[in-house]
Amino acid sequence: MSAAASFRTEKDLLGTLEVPADAYYGIQTLRAVHNFRLSGVPLAHYPKLVVALAMVKQAAADANRELGHLPEHKHAAISQACALLIRGEFHEQFVVDMIQGGAGTSTNMNANEVIANLALEAMGHAKGEYQYLHPNNDVNMAQSTNDAYPSAIRLGLLLGHDALLASLDSLIQAFAAKGEEFGEVLKMGRTQLQDAVPMTLGQEFRAFATTLGEDLDRLKRLVPELLTEVNLGGTAIGTGINADPRYQQLAVTRLAAISGQPLVPAADLIEATYDMGAFVLLSGMLKRTAVKLSKICNDLRLLSSGPRTGINEINLPARQPGSSIMPGKVNPVIPEAVNQVAFTVIGNDLAVTMAAEAGQLQLNVMEPLIAYKTLDSIRLLQRAMDMLREHCVVGITANVERCRELVEHSIGLVTALNPYIGYENATRIAKLALDSGRGVLELVREEGLLDEDLLADILRPENMIAPRLVPLRG
Amino acid sequence: MSAAASFRTEKDLLGTLEVPADAYYGIQTLRAVHNFRLSGVPLAHYPKLVVALAMVKQAAADANRELGHLPEHKHAAISQACALLIRGEFHEQFVVDMIQGGAGTSTNMNANEVIANLALEAMGHAKGEYQYLHPNNDVNMAQSTNDAYPSAIRLGLLLGHDALLASLDSLIQAFAAKGEEFGEVLKMGRTQLQDAVPMTLGQEFRAFATTLGEDLDRLKRLVPELLTEVNLGGTAIGTGINADPRYQQLAVTRLAAISGQPLVPAADLIEATYDMGAFVLLSGMLKRTAVKLSKICNDLRLLSSGPRTGINEINLPARQPGSSIMPGKVNPVIPEAVNQVAFTVIGNDLAVTMAAEAGQLQLNVMEPLIAYKTLDSIRLLQRAMDMLREHCVVGITANVERCRELVEHSIGLVTALNPYIGYENATRIAKLALDSGRGVLELVREEGLLDEDLLADILRPENMIAPRLVPLRG
Amino acid sequence: MSAAASFRTEKDLLGTLEVPADAYYGIQTLRAVHNFRLSGVPLAHYPKLVVALAMVKQAAADANRELGHLPEHKHAAISQACALLIRGEFHEQFVVDMIQGGAGTSTNMNANEVIANLALEAMGHAKGEYQYLHPNNDVNMAQSTNDAYPSAIRLGLLLGHDALLASLDSLIQAFAAKGEEFGEVLKMGRTQLQDAVPMTLGQEFRAFATTLGEDLDRLKRLVPELLTEVNLGGTAIGTGINADPRYQQLAVTRLAAISGQPLVPAADLIEATYDMGAFVLLSGMLKRTAVKLSKICNDLRLLSSGPRTGINEINLPARQPGSSIMPGKVNPVIPEAVNQVAFTVIGNDLAVTMAAEAGQLQLNVMEPLIAYKTLDSIRLLQRAMDMLREHCVVGITANVERCRELVEHSIGLVTALNPYIGYENATRIAKLALDSGRGVLELVREEGLLDEDLLADILRPENMIAPRLVPLRG
Amino acid sequence: MSAAASFRTEKDLLGTLEVPADAYYGIQTLRAVHNFRLSGVPLAHYPKLVVALAMVKQAAADANRELGHLPEHKHAAISQACALLIRGEFHEQFVVDMIQGGAGTSTNMNANEVIANLALEAMGHAKGEYQYLHPNNDVNMAQSTNDAYPSAIRLGLLLGHDALLASLDSLIQAFAAKGEEFGEVLKMGRTQLQDAVPMTLGQEFRAFATTLGEDLDRLKRLVPELLTEVNLGGTAIGTGINADPRYQQLAVTRLAAISGQPLVPAADLIEATYDMGAFVLLSGMLKRTAVKLSKICNDLRLLSSGPRTGINEINLPARQPGSSIMPGKVNPVIPEAVNQVAFTVIGNDLAVTMAAEAGQLQLNVMEPLIAYKTLDSIRLLQRAMDMLREHCVVGITANVERCRELVEHSIGLVTALNPYIGYENATRIAKLALDSGRGVLELVREEGLLDEDLLADILRPENMIAPRLVPLRG
Repeated sequence: MSAAASFRTEKDLLGTLEVPADAYYGIQTLRAVHNFRLSGVPLAHYPKLVVALAMVKQAAADANRELGHLPEHKHAAISQACALLIRGEFHEQFVVDMIQGGAGTSTNMNANEVIANLALEAMGHAKGEYQYLHPNNDVNMAQSTNDAYPSAIRLGLLLGHDALLASLDSLIQAFAAKGEEFGEVLKMGRTQLQDAVPMTLGQEFRAFATTLGEDLDRLKRLVPELLTEVNLGGTAIGTGINADPRYQQLAVTRLAAISGQPLVPAADLIEATYDMGAFVLLSGMLKRTAVKLSKICNDLRLLSSGPRTGINEINLPARQPGSSIMPGKVNPVIPEAVNQVAFTVIGNDLAVTMAAEAGQLQLNVMEPLIAYKTLDSIRLLQRAMDMLREHCVVGITANVERCRELVEHSIGLVTALNPYIGYENATRIAKLALDSGRGVLELVREEGLLDEDLLADILRPENMIAPRLVPLRG
Repeated sequence: MSAAASFRTEKDLLGTLEVPADAYYGIQTLRAVHNFRLSGVPLAHYPKLVVALAMVKQAAADANRELGHLPEHKHAAISQACALLIRGEFHEQFVVDMIQGGAGTSTNMNANEVIANLALEAMGHAKGEYQYLHPNNDVNMAQSTNDAYPSAIRLGLLLGHDALLASLDSLIQAFAAKGEEFGEVLKMGRTQLQDAVPMTLGQEFRAFATTLGEDLDRLKRLVPELLTEVNLGGTAIGTGINADPRYQQLAVTRLAAISGQPLVPAADLIEATYDMGAFVLLSGMLKRTAVKLSKICNDLRLLSSGPRTGINEINLPARQPGSSIMPGKVNPVIPEAVNQVAFTVIGNDLAVTMAAEAGQLQLNVMEPLIAYKTLDSIRLLQRAMDMLREHCVVGITANVERCRELVEHSIGLVTALNPYIGYENATRIAKLALDSGRGVLELVREEGLLDEDLLADILRPENMIAPRLVPLRG
Repeated sequence: MSAAASFRTEKDLLGTLEVPADAYYGIQTLRAVHNFRLSGVPLAHYPKLVVALAMVKQAAADANRELGHLPEHKHAAISQACALLIRGEFHEQFVVDMIQGGAGTSTNMNANEVIANLALEAMGHAKGEYQYLHPNNDVNMAQSTNDAYPSAIRLGLLLGHDALLASLDSLIQAFAAKGEEFGEVLKMGRTQLQDAVPMTLGQEFRAFATTLGEDLDRLKRLVPELLTEVNLGGTAIGTGINADPRYQQLAVTRLAAISGQPLVPAADLIEATYDMGAFVLLSGMLKRTAVKLSKICNDLRLLSSGPRTGINEINLPARQPGSSIMPGKVNPVIPEAVNQVAFTVIGNDLAVTMAAEAGQLQLNVMEPLIAYKTLDSIRLLQRAMDMLREHCVVGITANVERCRELVEHSIGLVTALNPYIGYENATRIAKLALDSGRGVLELVREEGLLDEDLLADILRPENMIAPRLVPLRG
Repeated sequence: MSAAASFRTEKDLLGTLEVPADAYYGIQTLRAVHNFRLSGVPLAHYPKLVVALAMVKQAAADANRELGHLPEHKHAAISQACALLIRGEFHEQFVVDMIQGGAGTSTNMNANEVIANLALEAMGHAKGEYQYLHPNNDVNMAQSTNDAYPSAIRLGLLLGHDALLASLDSLIQAFAAKGEEFGEVLKMGRTQLQDAVPMTLGQEFRAFATTLGEDLDRLKRLVPELLTEVNLGGTAIGTGINADPRYQQLAVTRLAAISGQPLVPAADLIEATYDMGAFVLLSGMLKRTAVKLSKICNDLRLLSSGPRTGINEINLPARQPGSSIMPGKVNPVIPEAVNQVAFTVIGNDLAVTMAAEAGQLQLNVMEPLIAYKTLDSIRLLQRAMDMLREHCVVGITANVERCRELVEHSIGLVTALNPYIGYENATRIAKLALDSGRGVLELVREEGLLDEDLLADILRPENMIAPRLVPLRG
């Protein structure tokens, strides 16, 4: 093939450009590529978004055929093209930067052009012979970027949702299993980083499972509720101008069927065209999960601190040598990485918030950023949770003896004796222990404040980690 | 009274202090006042928080009486004191700064001390005669700050929730009424700040009502669900150490009855003691409302821009002279103030997020900040919504003629003609209009592209602002 | 006095209102009070801002007199009024909410009206007799809110700057003194919360002084540079329309003289009228100080954690009883409060950032929020630093024995032996120590790897906490 | 080559792994790749960071040779390897994720291993034959990750600084040129989106140049000052343990020479090892530039709004078709993309802030995130500024007639007449114009308030856009 033949010429309202001959995208995509060299992250980086775009185009084509606006043979070719994208092929043709102006027009046109050219080839035509099937007139028929693009974003997020939940669920199970495993390990609880009262390590890990379980539950219920109201059919600003009155209902019904997601038409299409509320709340919810993960990882790092000059109640599995200068040092690298993911997600949430606030009048032009940052947060959280589970949580072990020793040497133990020896004795013993460096039990025994049987009973783990009826003193 | 008599001496673990004789708070409150001179905002600034504290103390007293731990006469005196606080009296005695260390201990002790001294007076004793009724032993009986304080915060937020919803609902009604009033006012819609297609001003204002309506709905459902899992009865770290095993259920049941809120005990008290997830999500939801209000106010300022060199489709009521130097200038001061409230709420959300992330091990010591910033956001949002409604929305008028003229002179009108004259004609006419400065309709008429009857039909507002079946051309 | 006499009637472009007879503010202030019931924080809350407003008015009056536009007797009366405000009187008359629409017009008018009425009384007239001296025509002469208000904010921040620096400096001195005091206390350093290598507690506290010292230095140099370019004389949008061409230079020169601050006129008044860059950077700098304080307080809480189940290398002074349920518990309440102040400052920075971004065209209408949040951050930081110093740092004591024991029992000690026994021996000893729970020194002695003299030399604190030439082995 | 030969076996403290035979990185890099599958952005994405790492290694090797610790032949081989990296080769070997735990250890080891293997090949050995030259013992000699890595980050940022300044400078020039070009275009200024007083479009664009010029100036002065204090030589925690006392000075001097950057040793190495203050302030400064760019782009979008129903004072160059449904629509896609970059930079700043705050004791383990987000912000800003200049600013044209008409029809014009006809007349005329829809000049002429000569003089652009002496009326 000659060099000249390695390009084809395409034309739009602004003039002509040379498109690489083997590209399925067309002139408008190419303009966007030239315009937006920013993040370096192309649409193809988020496969679920590409799949969702293809599903929207398929749904629109189905509705247009049913209404008699799209001929059968065009519908067949478009369907063939969409099917390819839906099963993960040709994604590398989605080349526009995730950060883009134009409120998603370039993304929408990237999809229209790729589908048109795939369809043209399926019809036996060459790429670029748009007289047979046109990216705008046929693939984008009855749509505006302003309804097709937000619908695809919502759908893309829904398509990725199960995978996020699965990773979250696995992590919860891992913490719960450790909760079970450490059920008998008595240790000191700490409040304000100060010795408090006894608990079990199992309770501590079970609480990690519980707190993430609340997020699993909420994400399960909240996200579909937030994302299923789509504005497909609203066209440019939600008035549905130039659309067939029957189109909206048909297109959304088809999209729900194709995607298997419980999509419903938005009640107020004007509002649904510009409102980013669902994304703000979703991002706020992801931020909450990030905050919880970060808190948990802070705790894991504290509990494994040492080994000699820290808390050292647990051991995290060694993942890599910790230092070239300090022999034997192993660091909590996995939780540290999760913390950094959490801070990224929180930063992303701020970008989403500002983008949502910047919407003006009938459209929010910052929607590409909202899509990008939300998808980024979901991917990072999912990967961080998998990493945390595989490379850290499942391998955590308890230093049972160390835990026990800390309880026995703690001042906080006196709290458990409080109901038996009285608050005044307890306070006095606590102070004495603190000043002398001696143990609370040692002092109690020395003063004969409690007989050994009762003391043994009080100090049984099961009696210290739950409410109990205090026998009368006398 | 002599000067000497204007103080009483109180004592705690750290020593003695002179407390003002007429103060109902005591030594621990006074220590906190000395320690924390920060925001200058005392607890009393948030009456619902004080009421909630009193309700928690009442519930605990009820449970303790029922379990036989608190004598009848002490219960009666405590109840009398709590009742005073619940009906809004003596709130000025809550003097501790909203920003405080100690994870709420000072707030809890402020409540314990005020209630103890009110109860002492009810019993015929003098303030400070704690041998008859003690802030710790009696009022704080069976509680820890770590369960009483978070329970009070949750309850305080729930108690204020209806007022927030009422203000939001009123604002929605005001926008909806304007949506109705402006139902016939045809105007241009704008996307990306560029002329798009026609709509009515009523649709625009109805969408404001819709978008806030979604938040009303979500706040109604989300908040109680988030806030009702209370950890009362968990004592220091959620193990319920030193509490009667029957206490937790009793105390929560009593608190639900007293407050009329659907409170339920948290399932995992270890987790519930430290987890701030509910506040993070609530704050994220308030942020969403702030974002929506800010977007609406941005729109109101754009739509009323001018009067001569802006959009000028609507008039906001004049609230104050705009300029001493520019005669006749009136500014959109009310929406501007709402924008600033929104930015404050978004900043508060960040403070809440960081505070939640900073929790360590069995307690989150940053909880006072979370309470403060959440209460601040709710109050600001409520006041901003009332201000926006009263001083702005209800007085907005439409410049009907201006709106109509803009539609008629717009290029965007050609979109409505698109299905009738074809995309190529439409594009040509658009370009011609733009280059010549002439009107689209004028050019269409000049070229005889449409007969006057059809044109009149197409241009009927009801036909431009909704999908319609396009009659066949031919 | 009759009830009727307790009000006077004032009039502006929008009509008349009844102003309380004893109020020095007038109708426009009153309108603002009615309009903006938001934060509840009045201008008077920030005295430096009120003083700065008075100085701006004085400077304008001086310039106007010199140019012959303001008669001597009016100038004298205005000067008398300004002097009262500058020395702190009548600040309670500044009643407008810090959050306000109108880009500061209400603040400017509050100043104009209070000064006018104080001046009127000085002239022997009654409040409100504006025919003799008018808030707009005389006090606001040659100014616009858009130049007077930003100038006052910049000046107000400069006036408060020294106090901030003084608090920061005192805190640095306190840390430096502890650095000196703890100079001989050998302890383990920790990286990634894992045992690292020895250092002294003095080095640790000196580093706190160093890191804050960098901020003192930067604040000293950066702030005046940022804040001194004032736009006084630019009037409405920086073109200086309707101002005397000689006015700008004169007014700024007078303001510099009155305030004692190195004020200079901005070079591009159009830009200076709307640009908030100086505030964004100042707030970013305050955020940096907040971040450093928060990090330091996190460290203080970690180092004092325990007393038995944490690090326990230092003791923070007890400021208040820690728990009603846990005898003897004392919590690090002061650092905890500083953390919360830091989060507030970081949240304020976000509000400032969003407000700055929201400026449009020739003015930033969000400037009142920027002023409010910046002043709030400064005040909170200053108070937090005073609190931290007085109530915490100066009373910190070291647990010298505990520190020494942790070093001796640490594995990290082996790093110091590394150059003498070789990396392989060091790694083997480290592993052996870790597995057996024994001490590194014990094992080294047991194996006879080093003679006692050399070992003693290596372990001398001064030899472990700085680079040293390793004597040849062999 | 057999399949078996395509891997080599490497060994570290945790065991052995199969490293791809052609990889220059080694086992520790591979562990990090397995551990951290997060952002998907490898170190190689930031070439200046790789170059800086190589320079640090070169400087250390030079110092070690000079001190007699590193033999000549090893030094020569390491130098050859570093030279390759410095001139941009083998960057693809830097494969570790930008988000990583371990405080940069993996990045440091990636550099050590790649340099060791390149050096080994230069010495005629095979990759992995570390007995001849070792990643740790030789390449990392005298360093710790904790001093080498932060030094490389600071240097990497300094190396990229000039390119950022160049892009900023070009953008400033572009705005300044438009300021010149539009110097005579009279237009209305707007405050609070309301008509204010006249100015020129040139003044408006010149102010854009001014405001960015302030950032150029500040970045030029601030960044080197912030980043040049390096902690190289401090080893693990800044005490320089195990380093030769002469090493620090030598290494920093060499690094300054190699890089051509004015590096100096930090005065307090303990502090310099953990402090992230320089990055927080740099990020805050980048945030400020982002805020300014966003404000400018908001203005460009407002000024070009329309073409018929907005302000329409300027035209942005068309970069791509705006809508498939609305013929002729062209959107401000370039400024929209800049807004989104700005929000990203602001979000990044938050991540940097939280990471800085999370440092604990002698190290900040979140430093990899700080490096990543700062480098990302710089790259995005640079690209966004280039895009804005090339694709937008240079092609902006003014609608001179439209600008003039808006001035003539504005009410704000009356402000310019104010000094000649008096405030009362001006206010009356303004109100009359507003109510009647007529022009101010028309009414002034009708009433004969000013003679035509004076009016013409007042309305001369040069007289309306700057202060002027008002001739006496009379």
